[in-house]
Parts: sequence; C-alpha cells; structure tokens
Amino acid sequence: MYLPTHFYQDNLPELFDLIEKNPLGSLIVVQDGEIEANHIPFELDRSEGEFGVLKGHIAKANPLFSILNEPLSAYVIFQAEQAYISPNWYEGKLEHHRVVPTWNYRVVHVKGTIQKLEDDRYLRGVLARLTRTHESTQALPWKMGDAPHDFIEEQLAKIVAVEIKIESIVGKFKVSQNRSVDDAENVAKALQEQNSAMAESIRKYYPNNS
Amino acid sequence: MYLPTHFYQDNLPELFDLIEKNPLGSLIVVQDGEIEANHIPFELDRSEGEFGVLKGHIAKANPLFSILNEPLSAYVIFQAEQAYISPNWYEGKLEHHRVVPTWNYRVVHVKGTIQKLEDDRYLRGVLARLTRTHESTQALPWKMGDAPHDFIEEQLAKIVAVEIKIESIVGKFKVSQNRSVDDAENVAKALQEQNSAMAESIRKYYPNNS
Repeated sequence: MYLPTHFYQDNLPELFDLIEKNPLGSLIVVQDGEIEANHIPFELDRSEGEFGVLKGHIAKANPLFSILNEPLSAYVIFQAEQAYISPNWYEGKLEHHRVVPTWNYRVVHVKGTIQKLEDDRYLRGVLARLTRTHESTQALPWKMGDAPHDFIEEQLAKIVAVEIKIESIVGKFKVSQNRSVDDAENVAKALQEQNSAMAESIRKYYPNNS
Repeated sequence: MYLPTHFYQDNLPELFDLIEKNPLGSLIVVQDGEIEANHIPFELDRSEGEFGVLKGHIAKANPLFSILNEPLSAYVIFQAEQAYISPNWYEGKLEHHRVVPTWNYRVVHVKGTIQKLEDDRYLRGVLARLTRTHESTQALPWKMGDAPHDFIEEQLAKIVAVEIKIESIVGKFKVSQNRSVDDAENVAKALQEQNSAMAESIRKYYPNNS
C-alpha cells in the first residue's frame, strides 16, 4: 500500500479499535496465482501473539474451505469511514487556488497465516464471543443456548473456525493531516454538515491532537 | 468468493450502480506471490468493452507504479452498506427459536487487466470527469481550470492514469433473501430504526421485488 508518512498509523490500540468497530474484513488469499476474496466478520483477540489473532468462521461450502487444507498467507483489509474531499473546503482556496480534490479514508491492512481449526470447542467459543459482542446492544441479547440443541448441531456441522495469527499490521489514516490546521478544520466542518463520521476522525487524528 | 444462489447478483446495471455509489475500490494485484493493495476512487466507463472499464489514477510514488511496468491481473472490491443481523428480529424466533445471527452486506468483485497509461490527455480526462462527478453536489463545483496552470502541471507530473478492462464482474447482495418475507421485513424495520442503509436494500432486493 502506498503510505505517505502523514497517513502512516502504527499505534496498535488505534488499529485494533478500527478493526473492532469495522469487523467485516475483506479476506484475501492467493492460490496458484488466483485471488480468492471473502467478507468475514472477525473477532480480534488482542492478547494472543505479538500483534493479536483474528478469529472467525467460514461455511464448509466456501471454496476457501478446501483451499485451507494447509495453512496459507492471508491479507485482510478493514475499512472505516471514507469521504470525497472538495477543494472548495480549503481555507486557502480563495487566495491562491493551489488546491485539488482528494479522498479521505481509514483502513487497516493485516498480513498473517490463516488456518482452519476443525475443533468443535474452539468453534463454539468463536461463535459465542462474536454473538456476545454484537448482541450487546439488544434489549434481550440472543445467545446460542436460546436455540434448540439439534438445530445448533446442524448449523455447526456446516461451518468451520478459522484463525489468522497477525504477523504485520499497519493503518492508513488519510484524514487531512497533510493540510494546514485551518484547512483540516474547514473540511471537518463541511463533512459534519453531511453527518459524515469522517468529521470526527479529522479532528481526532490531526497531528497536534494525537 | 462463496456465493450462494440467493445472494448471486449479475444484473449489470445493479452492479454498476453499486460501483458508482461506492467508488472507492480496494485494488489488489499479486506480484511474485505478494499482495499489493490500494484504495482508489474509480470512474466507471459503462460504455467501453463488454463489462465496462474502470479508470483512475495513482501516485508515481505508489509501489504499484513500478509494478505496472507491464499489464497485470487486477481484482477490485467495491463495498456498499453492511450490518449485523440479530436473530431477535426474525418473526419465527419466538415460535421455534431455530435461528442464528448473520451479517448482511453488498459487494461487487471485479476482475480485469490493469495497465498504466502515460498519456497526459487521458489523465486530464480521468481527473476532469472524476471531479465533475464528485463536485456535482457543490454549490459552486470546483474544476481544474480554477487552479493556476503551473500548479496543475506540478500535480499532474506526480500521478499517472490507470485503467482496468473488466473481464468478469459479479455481485454478492446478501440482504436477507434467504429468509421468509416476514423475517426480511422485520429485519428491515429493525435496521431502519438504526438509520441503516441496509433497511432499504433488504426491501429492494427481496426476491419478490426484484
């Protein structure tokens, strides 16, 4: 990834936060030169290994299931908010007009080794934690025990757990840090009027603030 | 990509709409077995070739610039709205409890051949159209002619146009079409309360509606 210094983010808690708030990763593996890409809601285990471990599950009907007969290199992209940035919003535009449009976005790119784990207990753990996390905003959070035993057994037989030990992780937080503080604030104001989540990120990650 | 029949989408105008509404693509190429991934706002030319052509630009400082010394296979992912789906929202939950959580999302996966075009006129065309599209909601749309000639020349010298002739394109529109009409409508209602764009897609793409 092209990653100019301004936008480079290697603060692990920041990268982990982005993953946990945007857990649907684009999981990419390469086999015989061909790309296989799938969208998987991951759980991040921050405590395992040097950079954490991503855990999830896939359908046995997924082409990935047989590709993963052996551990493989994996690349996962997590994407947060993004927005087109008009040069009209830059403070200096009316003085010198030396401005062009751009796109802001925040992404985390992860590399690691993916393997499937045909381990019923591990799979149940992954599903229980994934469910607990995402049901936490429900008035009456659903849990696996709510469903009949035979139904859950049927569902579990169709899927398998996967885990990715993270070997490298980097973020590109491209949120106007290469502009003056006035430009950045004006962009944030314009995006706030559009109710864009990008407004908050520009303010949060501006060099003087982080 | 794992793509069950319920979620398979090959209607070209639908796929093109998703790209145009979510133009920041994840562009993936493989060189010597290594993945290089970048986030590029693409213009879609619907009229060229069998499945259209994606046009964009990259910085010459991008590692991709030298990788593209020859045309290469490219994989591009465009992602629209996504949402966690609680089984609490399914109509049948209170009767039989035979339900589990899932994730809804809409994506388009494109394969094609990417090449760089060191052609000043082509590059200006790409930038002018990209700008026109994304400035269309501005009260006074910015255009390249607003900036001083020497400044634009400087900027153009730092970038190069790229194009991807689309050779295959497919969508996964996973928006509750595998549930009963009552379940789907209940999910849409719950998501509407969260102001999720997914609510509209569930109703739009339900099998009886599309």
